Amino acid sequence: MRLSVSVSLMLVNPVRNGSPGMENRDDVVELKASIHELIEQEAWSDVTEEFDNLHVQDIALLLTELSDPDQRVQVFRQVPQERWVATFSYLSAGQQEDLLKQLRNREGRFILTNLHPDDRTALLQQMAPENAERTLKLLRPEDVRLALSLLNYPEESVGRLMTPRYISIRPEWTVREALAHVRQEGRKGETMNTVMVLDDSERLVDVVHLRDLILGELDDTVESICPGYFVSVSPAEDRETAVRLMQHYDLEVLSVVDSDGVLLGIVTIDDIMDVATEETTEDFHKMGSVAAINLSLHEASPQLLYRKRVGWLVSLVFINIFSGAAIAIFEATIEAVIALVFFLPMIVASGGNAGAQAATLMVRAMATGDVTMGDWTRLLGKELTVGIGLGLTMGLAVSFIGLWRGGTEVALVVALAMALVVVMGSLVGLILPFLLSRLRFDPATASVPLITCIADIAGILIYFSVATALLTLPSPV
Amino acid sequence: MRLSVSVSLMLVNPVRNGSPGMENRDDVVELKASIHELIEQEAWSDVTEEFDNLHVQDIALLLTELSDPDQRVQVFRQVPQERWVATFSYLSAGQQEDLLKQLRNREGRFILTNLHPDDRTALLQQMAPENAERTLKLLRPEDVRLALSLLNYPEESVGRLMTPRYISIRPEWTVREALAHVRQEGRKGETMNTVMVLDDSERLVDVVHLRDLILGELDDTVESICPGYFVSVSPAEDRETAVRLMQHYDLEVLSVVDSDGVLLGIVTIDDIMDVATEETTEDFHKMGSVAAINLSLHEASPQLLYRKRVGWLVSLVFINIFSGAAIAIFEATIEAVIALVFFLPMIVASGGNAGAQAATLMVRAMATGDVTMGDWTRLLGKELTVGIGLGLTMGLAVSFIGLWRGGTEVALVVALAMALVVVMGSLVGLILPFLLSRLRFDPATASVPLITCIADIAGILIYFSVATALLTLPSPV
Repeated sequence: MRLSVSVSLMLVNPVRNGSPGMENRDDVVELKASIHELIEQEAWSDVTEEFDNLHVQDIALLLTELSDPDQRVQVFRQVPQERWVATFSYLSAGQQEDLLKQLRNREGRFILTNLHPDDRTALLQQMAPENAERTLKLLRPEDVRLALSLLNYPEESVGRLMTPRYISIRPEWTVREALAHVRQEGRKGETMNTVMVLDDSERLVDVVHLRDLILGELDDTVESICPGYFVSVSPAEDRETAVRLMQHYDLEVLSVVDSDGVLLGIVTIDDIMDVATEETTEDFHKMGSVAAINLSLHEASPQLLYRKRVGWLVSLVFINIFSGAAIAIFEATIEAVIALVFFLPMIVASGGNAGAQAATLMVRAMATGDVTMGDWTRLLGKELTVGIGLGLTMGLAVSFIGLWRGGTEVALVVALAMALVVVMGSLVGLILPFLLSRLRFDPATASVPLITCIADIAGILIYFSVATALLTLPSPV
Repeated sequence: MRLSVSVSLMLVNPVRNGSPGMENRDDVVELKASIHELIEQEAWSDVTEEFDNLHVQDIALLLTELSDPDQRVQVFRQVPQERWVATFSYLSAGQQEDLLKQLRNREGRFILTNLHPDDRTALLQQMAPENAERTLKLLRPEDVRLALSLLNYPEESVGRLMTPRYISIRPEWTVREALAHVRQEGRKGETMNTVMVLDDSERLVDVVHLRDLILGELDDTVESICPGYFVSVSPAEDRETAVRLMQHYDLEVLSVVDSDGVLLGIVTIDDIMDVATEETTEDFHKMGSVAAINLSLHEASPQLLYRKRVGWLVSLVFINIFSGAAIAIFEATIEAVIALVFFLPMIVASGGNAGAQAATLMVRAMATGDVTMGDWTRLLGKELTVGIGLGLTMGLAVSFIGLWRGGTEVALVVALAMALVVVMGSLVGLILPFLLSRLRFDPATASVPLITCIADIAGILIYFSVATALLTLPSPV
């Protein structure tokens, strides 16, 4: 049985014809369509049979597509029980919470007990307090203790991503003993590819790959095949640190140790990829001046979306009063040469656009670690060069429009104003993310709308000042 | 020896005090500072010794920090030769190209021959044609054939990421035989954790994890422990598909097959994480109306940055002529009530801001696969609800400013115009990414500056139309 690609994930990218993945994708489309039909017919035993041909990730996706909660729980029950936990783990926290509410206590207990500790933490931290309490009651006492200890770490910390289910061996063991132990304990760990080497006091001594054990001589000691260095992190560290470390060092597993070097748990690559995606989404949203939404756009209610957007919109209006005020200062200039208003949007917008470009480049480079605070002066020089180049080009471009609409004098004014405004915008776009980072804000707070707003105010002042200076007009009030 | 964290990666995130990672990070800072000092003193043997304490990734980082190319090649030669290839593979393609130009042919040949085939493709595809040709001459004939066949796949395709270095076993073998084979061939594969099961005609039958072999009964056949389904992709597929598949199915290795199901190669998770970061950066830049830059901001020259930015800036100015034209239509209205210009920036900007929010949410949701074309109508309804809510709030907010600046009549005009403009902006932000995707453009082309520009034009028309209608002014020309 060969199934290639989840469907709804694929529709985003138009698919080329004739590629072999295509047929399989059609298979999945058909399969899912037929399952949806079987669900409508309530032919439950057939549904169960068809589920054998789907990956758990696709079953989870199919559940997500069902909008009726009663139907969803009914369909979930058709999943073979040995795949319940895996299927459940691929649902979003919101869907997990809904499903748990509808399942019988016995069913919920089965899932929660078998869920990986890190997935449990992810679920519990998203739950409303009263639901979390009810959920904890379903767990065994030792699992409750574990869950609470993990939830005790700060939000968005490495501790919240950690699982204590690793496989450990001792440095003095032979490779033969180590392999026998791995074979015996293997199913208990969340990953077997990486094995932790601990001393008698549970301190992390080294990290060994399963492949090194396989390739090693059976009578050698574990110590002798240890690579000799490893990467570890504290549980209190920001989870973005874990992302960076695992990406930088190409790790599949990151070890989490306390201040004495005692191993507390491990973070696995699949969780880190999810975090990386979440963090990027957060940055993305911030750049569009939307507050972080930790939900899929599907699940987010209009109320939530409203709340996440209204704050910035209203704040920006009040900042924009200054744009109005800047215009008010030059009302006499405008009244004298009303034609100047024609050029206002394009000059002002260009400053914002140049700023948006500089800010996007900067915020992303800071997020990936490509640029650090230390690069500040060198980048300022580079941005100034680029900004002047762009400003001259833009000034030239707009001078033609100026000539056409208002003659030589106006052309000169708009060209000069444009060049200055573009340079100003570029610099604002560069400086603001650095400044915010300096003040311990997220540099992505330098959203494009915020940059545009600042560039608007400065742009209006620059434009009308240039006009007033060059056109021998009544000076501003 | 325990070293925790690469330094310059960390400076982006301010570090908390007292966390255990801290000391190790300081170790790395000190170590790197001392190496830089040794480099200045040209104490080469000491440099070599210190390199033993660094991960290859950090050695690569240190090389990146050196600005003098002669010094860089000198320092590279101090890296123990058995770590040359690994260190080299963590440099950017540009740095690899520079280094190869400076190394002797013998040295370059050693590196290129031992580099993973996928890393070789990544390097060759970035090179200027004349350099690529010279580089190919350093390779063995069979490696040249392999490199050319991989480069034959379209740019940004899965084929370009692929390595043919996998470990394969036969379904009829016993687990014992399979393990013996893995032990023998293990070092040749790029990963050992995943083993490919092939039939006599090299067709992919299944994919087995090393852990399943370890946990299996030695006398069972491989076939009996096969999971029974796997995920594969065509080499012509867009590399973003590979990213989605590996993220969706939590894969460490993705198999690439031709139309007959013959295994061509594998894609590994570390390459996919890099691609995911690159693709996200591209989306990020596009949202800020910057053309894709496949270089670090550090390495990008001012000329390159200028070229990547000037196109959109100039295009947007010419679109903005329509904003000017919209204003020109209402020149009489403006002349009659010059106070209206005061509110122009804030009303027009709010439309752009609401649009920026909607577009960012949508573009990101489409990039992560959260939203597909099919969701279009449902999301339109949701966005309309949110947009109306935001419009009413914003109208109310601005009506106070209107009252203060211009009295009841003006307050009514600006409130109504604001509400309409915000709803309009929200809808533009939602619709444009969908529309672009429909027309087979990247939805991220709906950049914030573009949305702002469109919202500007529509906003000006809406605002002055409302004013003309309500204020009993001379009607527009």
